[in-house]
Amino acid sequence: MKMQAFTVENIPLIKEGDDIASIICENTTIEDNDIVVIASTIVAKAEGRMFRLEDIIPGERALTIASKHNLDARFVQAVLDRSKEVLVDYPIFLVETHNGHVCIKAGIDESNVDVGYLADLPSNPDESTSRIGEAIEQITGKKISVILTDTNGRAFKIGQTGIAIGVYRIHPIKNWKGQKDLFGNTLEITEEAIADEIAGAANLLMGEGDGGYPVVIIRGLELRSEESSIQEIYRSDREDIIKKGLRCLSKV
Amino acid sequence: MKMQAFTVENIPLIKEGDDIASIICENTTIEDNDIVVIASTIVAKAEGRMFRLEDIIPGERALTIASKHNLDARFVQAVLDRSKEVLVDYPIFLVETHNGHVCIKAGIDESNVDVGYLADLPSNPDESTSRIGEAIEQITGKKISVILTDTNGRAFKIGQTGIAIGVYRIHPIKNWKGQKDLFGNTLEITEEAIADEIAGAANLLMGEGDGGYPVVIIRGLELRSEESSIQEIYRSDREDIIKKGLRCLSKV
Repeated sequence: MKMQAFTVENIPLIKEGDDIASIICENTTIEDNDIVVIASTIVAKAEGRMFRLEDIIPGERALTIASKHNLDARFVQAVLDRSKEVLVDYPIFLVETHNGHVCIKAGIDESNVDVGYLADLPSNPDESTSRIGEAIEQITGKKISVILTDTNGRAFKIGQTGIAIGVYRIHPIKNWKGQKDLFGNTLEITEEAIADEIAGAANLLMGEGDGGYPVVIIRGLELRSEESSIQEIYRSDREDIIKKGLRCLSKV
Repeated sequence: MKMQAFTVENIPLIKEGDDIASIICENTTIEDNDIVVIASTIVAKAEGRMFRLEDIIPGERALTIASKHNLDARFVQAVLDRSKEVLVDYPIFLVETHNGHVCIKAGIDESNVDVGYLADLPSNPDESTSRIGEAIEQITGKKISVILTDTNGRAFKIGQTGIAIGVYRIHPIKNWKGQKDLFGNTLEITEEAIADEIAGAANLLMGEGDGGYPVVIIRGLELRSEESSIQEIYRSDREDIIKKGLRCLSKV
């Protein structure tokens, strides 16, 4: 089995209103079963999901957290506005967003945007992803998948990896349940988080900062599905012992 | 930028004493800067790190945990023997191994081994990885990196991804600190967990069970380093709020 991954060259600096699907199709040839991996920051820019701190008035809770954290209280307010729950506010500011995504600072991006502006995660990542996917399919006549990505840290280990925050026509989890292993034993669990693995692979080529390539094509896998959603990946509260642990800390 | 990933075909069923480096070199052509990604199970087999439950006598603690968990107490004892700390025992059995690696059931593998046997993680993964890496370099005359992988779950999201448990000549973290972004802003954090991203990419091709390919080559990246260690990746206890949260639960 083999797989190729390559950056789409010559993507211009994206601004509000830009048609990302067209820009991608103008700069590369798309094939059936391609997985188009797109960094969420350019989608945020195209969708105009930028905002400024000076437009925000912090409330009581934001002021409290800001002083503990040595953060700008308006920034904290922006995070709170985008969060369903604050899991821990110090020494990391980890929240669950309205989409069910757990990340630092609600995924608000301070880098790669004009000074004074901040970029949001898309409010409905699957929807943003699908819109671009359908447009690419319409332009090219090919059947593809799309993954929208961000970079996140993780428990127990330092460093960040590319991860999936929205999907089009690819299930975030590939289910190996019930299949046999090499010795005929039934595989115990094995739900493979393929969308995150693909996002990580793409991030190796995307780079950060100056040399950034926000669009990567992954070719050679056959993972296209019918409808899919990033919601398939989020653990229910009931099963989430790590959330329980963090909530335990705030009660102490 | 581009990257290829491909499975090494015709790797035979590995048994104790097998020379994995030679077997790999006999079945593929290695190039400079290749990253050879190897599933830890075959290294465990070659190193003879297999054991049987019937050889284990469970202690008090193992018996207690086993009854809560509905697990075999001998299996629980095997996990305890390999662990520095039990972070949580129910509903998941999450431990920190003596290597500092946090995973379910100390990474003991019940699949892809003969019935009645279990496979261990290597006791010193960097050492196992380096031994194979140096052997490949000696055989081929090429300069390469090697990553030893396992599959692990993660916090907040379901599913497992390929992750790095040992490295040879590749830093698990690529440091982007101090570099500028597209607008000249200094990048805030950004330590990219490249070894885990590569492990995840390889896992997309490795498969699980019957169709498994335990060795994947990643080609096209220039990430070879001088000496490196997987220890670079583990978060110190002092910084680890998630561990604190789990410990909080056991005090309640």
